Amino acid sequence: MNEHTEINFEGAACPLPLQHTARIVMAHGSGGKMSHDLVARLFVPAFDNPVLRAGDDAGVVELASGKRLAVSTDSHVVWPLFFPGGDIGRLAICGTVNDVAVMGAEPKWITAGFILEEGLEVETLQRVIASMHAAAVEAGVELIAGDTKFVQRGKADGLYINTTGVGIIPLGITPNGSRAEEGDIILLTGTIGDHGMAVVSARGDLGFTSSICSDTAPLNQMIRSALDAAGDAIHVMRDPTRGGLATTLNEIARQSGKGIVIQEKAIPVKSPVRAACEMLGFDPLYVANEGKLVIIVRPDLAARTLAAVRACRYGEEAEMIGEVGNAPAGMVLMKTIFGSTRVVDMLAGEILPRIC
Amino acid sequence: MNEHTEINFEGAACPLPLQHTARIVMAHGSGGKMSHDLVARLFVPAFDNPVLRAGDDAGVVELASGKRLAVSTDSHVVWPLFFPGGDIGRLAICGTVNDVAVMGAEPKWITAGFILEEGLEVETLQRVIASMHAAAVEAGVELIAGDTKFVQRGKADGLYINTTGVGIIPLGITPNGSRAEEGDIILLTGTIGDHGMAVVSARGDLGFTSSICSDTAPLNQMIRSALDAAGDAIHVMRDPTRGGLATTLNEIARQSGKGIVIQEKAIPVKSPVRAACEMLGFDPLYVANEGKLVIIVRPDLAARTLAAVRACRYGEEAEMIGEVGNAPAGMVLMKTIFGSTRVVDMLAGEILPRIC
Repeated sequence: MNEHTEINFEGAACPLPLQHTARIVMAHGSGGKMSHDLVARLFVPAFDNPVLRAGDDAGVVELASGKRLAVSTDSHVVWPLFFPGGDIGRLAICGTVNDVAVMGAEPKWITAGFILEEGLEVETLQRVIASMHAAAVEAGVELIAGDTKFVQRGKADGLYINTTGVGIIPLGITPNGSRAEEGDIILLTGTIGDHGMAVVSARGDLGFTSSICSDTAPLNQMIRSALDAAGDAIHVMRDPTRGGLATTLNEIARQSGKGIVIQEKAIPVKSPVRAACEMLGFDPLYVANEGKLVIIVRPDLAARTLAAVRACRYGEEAEMIGEVGNAPAGMVLMKTIFGSTRVVDMLAGEILPRIC
Repeated sequence: MNEHTEINFEGAACPLPLQHTARIVMAHGSGGKMSHDLVARLFVPAFDNPVLRAGDDAGVVELASGKRLAVSTDSHVVWPLFFPGGDIGRLAICGTVNDVAVMGAEPKWITAGFILEEGLEVETLQRVIASMHAAAVEAGVELIAGDTKFVQRGKADGLYINTTGVGIIPLGITPNGSRAEEGDIILLTGTIGDHGMAVVSARGDLGFTSSICSDTAPLNQMIRSALDAAGDAIHVMRDPTRGGLATTLNEIARQSGKGIVIQEKAIPVKSPVRAACEMLGFDPLYVANEGKLVIIVRPDLAARTLAAVRACRYGEEAEMIGEVGNAPAGMVLMKTIFGSTRVVDMLAGEILPRIC
């Protein structure tokens, strides 16, 4: 999935109180602690199985032939439907393509399920479909099944789109969140916070026009380049979406039982994004991305992987931002630009509802 | 898909005017002509490919090994969430399991994407999840990926669930809507209209308490029994959901370019369902089912297939209801109980919104 709320199970091992137990609140959608808790309490006990328990971005299953498939699903409820750099259609294709690709799979097929609100302008739907088509062509995936459902006015917000992707994993490729190892290098493929702040900007919450664009993009070509460079020495890949880079690194730290240290000065943030975050009180580490990857790779192949990523369209601003180890197990630390060290925790509350 | 609005392409070959072009209206969700038209005008031009063009309940793709996968997606927006004989969770599992199974596939894996409205009671979600789990166990499918999204109060109606299923098709099994042949026998695995009228009853629209129960059920075991009995002599299987038996038969007639004749007296309808339909002015032929199959089989194996189906839990009331041929190409005719013949067209308007 684009988010890991449904598959990261640390809450099950160490139960937290289920906050706001009686009713669903928007903070359950943060991608952070409350999301994890809700999933751990409701979904895990019902559906627990080895595939889900792995806690990765896509479920990996094996056919009788030994071939492995990666399958991932994501519903998209982003508001507004159109924002600088993207729209719900491009997001729906890219989000699922990326979740399949980070498992090392070649994304092949995709399904699309639409929930359409009575009164939606057909022209709007046409624009979204055209955008999905363009993204699918760019990613090289084929839409093989679809569904349309209709609800009365006031029972949705224009349209929602679920996409589910299926990809094939080459033999010998097994990146997943549990494989982070001491000494591994952490790469980030570009600037953080662009998607979240582009959506905020489209909502008019900045109070001024900004140049911020969403990074929504299919990353499967870049992932293939990275795998060509380093193969199975790439231990983990994940796209830091809802909950941002901080939440993704915490998930990996917990899945692998390793500590992580990142360098604040190495993490690229565009100036307008940084300014917008400061104005609204957001930390870019927690703001969603839709076109960035975290790659955790064996140190001897880190430079080669970085070069391969930088040669790609969506990876030109890639950086080494840290390493695995030198921190307590399951914890993420950051060396700040002031030379101090701070704990980077998982997102706790809700900062941006309906960001994807 | 549970419905065929997105994959039946006759509208593309013979364009109808797109009714209500400017805005989405509830009638677009009928599963009938307006649904087909919307899909033909908006989705087909964007995503046309051989897999979608086949127009079946699931997309069928081939791996390099020659193994074939069936993939189907369905979003579920049924209201109310709970109704006699089922709920949105059981429906979400069964609908997708059935769409995969009617392609001759063994359903193996399923994904679930939830859209949750702020204020939803957690206890309600728990009940739905428990019901999904029970249905998944009954069907023998494993949930391998999930996703949760959250929208503000008034932007959904409790919860919506997308399920996407993946199944494996055994070698030599190729049922699909285009394979209906002159002389084939049409089996129906039980009574029609139960699901639709159970939901109507749960809405209080009958004005009295009824004994009507939804037929929501996973049909993959029954489908396996039928395939064991007749193998690839089963030319078509399809579950008559949204739009009812009439719409499903019309889809098959158009896909195959054959005529279809059914016998009204052979079509089983439970008395309370018939009474409720008469009271509300519905024709049971157009009311949705969620646990019934149409099976179109070579005549020499029809009796054997019928016996195999009747031996199954969900097929005890199966009947031979008609045959392929003796009608103009692409048309469905019905011999009425009065001895006359009437044309049975595809559903035209909207009769029951949010039935699945």
